[in-house]
Amino acid sequence: MSVVCLEEKLATFSDLWSPKIVGRLNDLDLMVVKVKGEFVWHSHPDTDDFFLVLKGRLTIEMRDGDVHLGPGELYVVPKGVEHRPVAAEETHLLLIEPKGTPNTGDAATAAVKTAI
Amino acid sequence: MSVVCLEEKLATFSDLWSPKIVGRLNDLDLMVVKVKGEFVWHSHPDTDDFFLVLKGRLTIEMRDGDVHLGPGELYVVPKGVEHRPVAAEETHLLLIEPKGTPNTGDAATAAVKTAI
Repeated sequence: MSVVCLEEKLATFSDLWSPKIVGRLNDLDLMVVKVKGEFVWHSHPDTDDFFLVLKGRLTIEMRDGDVHLGPGELYVVPKGVEHRPVAAEETHLLLIEPKGTPNTGDAATAAVKTAI
Repeated sequence: MSVVCLEEKLATFSDLWSPKIVGRLNDLDLMVVKVKGEFVWHSHPDTDDFFLVLKGRLTIEMRDGDVHLGPGELYVVPKGVEHRPVAAEETHLLLIEPKGTPNTGDAATAAVKTAI
């Protein structure tokens, strides 16, 4: 692979809630995504879920309490924990999940993750 | 876990080449580290090696050619590939490796990774 400049990768697309694969770490996809608004409540039964805010602000709603992230802040939603990402403004994230993890927790409704 | 502010975590220590664990993603350690100067040549036979520059500049020397990273740039050294990180100035990194991976590629010389 070559060096991945996250800002350059994010400049190549504008669609929201559609993670783009920028690299691979063992069996994990490294992805960037632009989000704004409310995502769906979901969980991942087989994996933790990594969020790092690159720009903007993200709230991760969870049944037991929300967390709020700004630039340079990360959070890992534990395996199986229901969550809903919400962003009032357009927010840019680095996501890390095992290859093939559906972003909605459900393969039937998941975004197709393309490599950029 | 709670929200991890990478800059706050980095402000809590000053030793170089000594990764600190700030979180966990499945079986992987999420770590921050401060580096300056030349590390040792090494490789990891069982895992890729993730580097994201948070501040400063990092060169990853490899036998087939070096890569140069600035803030917001990431690189994954493939499993088994010999590499040597080098930084002319103090540089701050996010590292991701499976739990227990020796930072030098050799358990006998590896830094003890403590959680902060």
